[in-house]
Amino acid sequence: MNIDELKLLLEQKNYTEISKRLKNMQEVDIAELLDELEHKDALLVFRLLPKDTAVNVFAYLSPQKQGEISMLANEDELSNIVNALYFDDKIDFLEEMPAHIVKKILRNSTETERHLINQFLNYPDNSAGSLMTIEFIDLKKHMTVKEALEKIRRIGMNKETIYTCYVIDSQRKLEGIVSLKDLVLADPEQKIEDIMQTDFVSVKTLDDQEEVAALFKKYDLLAVPVVDNENRLVGIITIDDIVDVMEEEATEDFYHMAAMQTSEKPYLATSAFELAKQRFIWLLLLMVSSTISGAIIHKYEYALQSAVALAIFMPMLMDTGGNAGSQSSTVVIRSIALGEISFKDTLKIIWKEFSVSIIVGIPLALVNFLRIYFIEKYDMRIAITVSGTLVITVIFAKLVGSILPIVAKKVDIDPAIMAAPLITTIVDAISLMFYFSFAHVVLGL
Amino acid sequence: MNIDELKLLLEQKNYTEISKRLKNMQEVDIAELLDELEHKDALLVFRLLPKDTAVNVFAYLSPQKQGEISMLANEDELSNIVNALYFDDKIDFLEEMPAHIVKKILRNSTETERHLINQFLNYPDNSAGSLMTIEFIDLKKHMTVKEALEKIRRIGMNKETIYTCYVIDSQRKLEGIVSLKDLVLADPEQKIEDIMQTDFVSVKTLDDQEEVAALFKKYDLLAVPVVDNENRLVGIITIDDIVDVMEEEATEDFYHMAAMQTSEKPYLATSAFELAKQRFIWLLLLMVSSTISGAIIHKYEYALQSAVALAIFMPMLMDTGGNAGSQSSTVVIRSIALGEISFKDTLKIIWKEFSVSIIVGIPLALVNFLRIYFIEKYDMRIAITVSGTLVITVIFAKLVGSILPIVAKKVDIDPAIMAAPLITTIVDAISLMFYFSFAHVVLGL
Repeated sequence: MNIDELKLLLEQKNYTEISKRLKNMQEVDIAELLDELEHKDALLVFRLLPKDTAVNVFAYLSPQKQGEISMLANEDELSNIVNALYFDDKIDFLEEMPAHIVKKILRNSTETERHLINQFLNYPDNSAGSLMTIEFIDLKKHMTVKEALEKIRRIGMNKETIYTCYVIDSQRKLEGIVSLKDLVLADPEQKIEDIMQTDFVSVKTLDDQEEVAALFKKYDLLAVPVVDNENRLVGIITIDDIVDVMEEEATEDFYHMAAMQTSEKPYLATSAFELAKQRFIWLLLLMVSSTISGAIIHKYEYALQSAVALAIFMPMLMDTGGNAGSQSSTVVIRSIALGEISFKDTLKIIWKEFSVSIIVGIPLALVNFLRIYFIEKYDMRIAITVSGTLVITVIFAKLVGSILPIVAKKVDIDPAIMAAPLITTIVDAISLMFYFSFAHVVLGL
Repeated sequence: MNIDELKLLLEQKNYTEISKRLKNMQEVDIAELLDELEHKDALLVFRLLPKDTAVNVFAYLSPQKQGEISMLANEDELSNIVNALYFDDKIDFLEEMPAHIVKKILRNSTETERHLINQFLNYPDNSAGSLMTIEFIDLKKHMTVKEALEKIRRIGMNKETIYTCYVIDSQRKLEGIVSLKDLVLADPEQKIEDIMQTDFVSVKTLDDQEEVAALFKKYDLLAVPVVDNENRLVGIITIDDIVDVMEEEATEDFYHMAAMQTSEKPYLATSAFELAKQRFIWLLLLMVSSTISGAIIHKYEYALQSAVALAIFMPMLMDTGGNAGSQSSTVVIRSIALGEISFKDTLKIIWKEFSVSIIVGIPLALVNFLRIYFIEKYDMRIAITVSGTLVITVIFAKLVGSILPIVAKKVDIDPAIMAAPLITTIVDAISLMFYFSFAHVVLGL
């Protein structure tokens, strides 16, 4: 069923048909349809869903639509939905809702749950704690495989993932993990302690989500246990949330490299004013910093006056420098993000980028020389000045572009935001300085 | 055990200790150690590993180290390792190896396997077929849950994932899927057809990996079945490979946006010459295209001659235009990649970017005017010319930056490669044209 069919059926008030068609759809797809409906229609369709489906659909709705439905639903209905949400979805939902809805929900929670919700709402953004869920299966090591499987059958229905089970002692300290695969393949009478893995990967509540994602990638994990400082198990993080984290982190780098702050909202849902706010400061900063290039030109105004043709090649030099520099910074920033290079590789990287700059710089300069001297028929000395500057510019651009992100990382600044937007400004200034110094010597200005 | 400890133990020939310490390590971590050893030492340590571990460690090695070990290992040893690899790892390995090693391996394979390997090697790069593995559990719908679990126990050991099982008919056509969770939670006497899901997501062998990754994200999948044109099940793709695809696709966009071709090799393993090859063509193309800006300056040389101060503000105008444009193109390119916007949103996007350009452009121009007129004490007319050009440049940059990627996507060109590198060149030319036209009018040149 697509949105037009649904709207038509709604007009015809043919709710039986809507119910029937919804049954054959995936929950995400239903949520997508609801996101496109007016809030009253959305609530109407939402109420047609079987209870189990409704809860999962609710978790997939956009925060905006969740808010609208929460507003319109009565208190009982709302608390039924919210209580049935997986804990991490519940926290995500509460984080987005206005205070009066959060209050309504907390009023209908038990005291233990209220305490837990408050604790989870306090984990910093981007921490492992903010990603985890409390739905997992915990086992004891003296259990047999049969007992473990019985426990899973008893409580497994409500757990977000049962593919990894966690073995804890009486203090809830994590002792081992055992996969459902191992349980299914094991002899039912075996003890859990005999089949559990003790060399497992775990993270702490305050670990950064980027590091957690790196562990998932390295060890091909489906879930990772989260422990507190006393090594007590407090939750687990599952791969579906990590997939979102990976996208978020890549988006952050894209935005930073284009001199923008990030937002978690999708583009179309962000107002022009908010977008402008994310972009203005960097534009201003870079505009002001490019006055350095202006000052350099100002200093050599006399040279330009006597050879105004020099101005013609300024855009080409600045653009090529900027492009060469951002190639290098992009490669280095991305390699840092993927964990492929680190500070100890600095010399290797500098040498590599230097070699590349020679290999690309000389042919570029040559093409340039031929064009200026033979095709555009400028003075040989101008052709030499421009081409010479081009080689030096490419070399410097690639060195600055590769060193800046490494240094930024070393002093704990995000390489993407520190290096990428500044490259152009720095390279412009360097290239103009060389250009006019060259001109001064070669043209005798 | 870290690499220094391992090297020390190798010097001391203390192989018992090495074996003991390797036992407590994760396979990925062992592979990382081997990658750092000389090839003879690597083979030596590799031979100390228990057979099961050795195979998994081999799958995690870099292609280079896999090659070295394959070269040194004898034919029996090599075919033992390769035969025990998961099928997708085997294909990845064969793709990287020189012809004589591939031949050696094919010689030791059965004919069916040889046929299958050849078929898999022929799936195009970046297709679902090239990502899939043939290790999965297939069930028949008339089986009971108990029979299914028995089959899983019997053959499950060698399967890469048993968390989703696939129900096929006698023609191997895919009829449904059933998760291990559902099997474990179900009554042992229930029929598979009663618990299997029939509204499942599947992909075709030639589907693009980017689309497959989008399905995983949307439906929170752990694995997806791959079918041929007759809907026969030929393999499955698991989330760990999709995580790699997501990274690869993001890296590709980063590279394209910085005017580079991508490579699958890590940066440090790529020679300067190969790196130069990835970068040269675009640098050349952009260098040549920026002669357009040169031509515009050439046309207005007379204006520059009478007011050489105009040159001073060229870098600021071009840089701000470039930055404003790449902000917009980055947002749009990323939103397209995340599936958040499509062609039908074009008008909305243009309007949004236009609004943003007004909101940021006017304050920028104002700051600029104040600086030029009051601080640097230039002629009022110059301040007006520069600031006026700045507003127009920001507006045009944001419009070009947002429209170009959408149009590229529409005509099926990668928005990242089409739009991002060209923005600067286009915006430079536009901004210079406005600048000199303005100057012509305001300064009466």
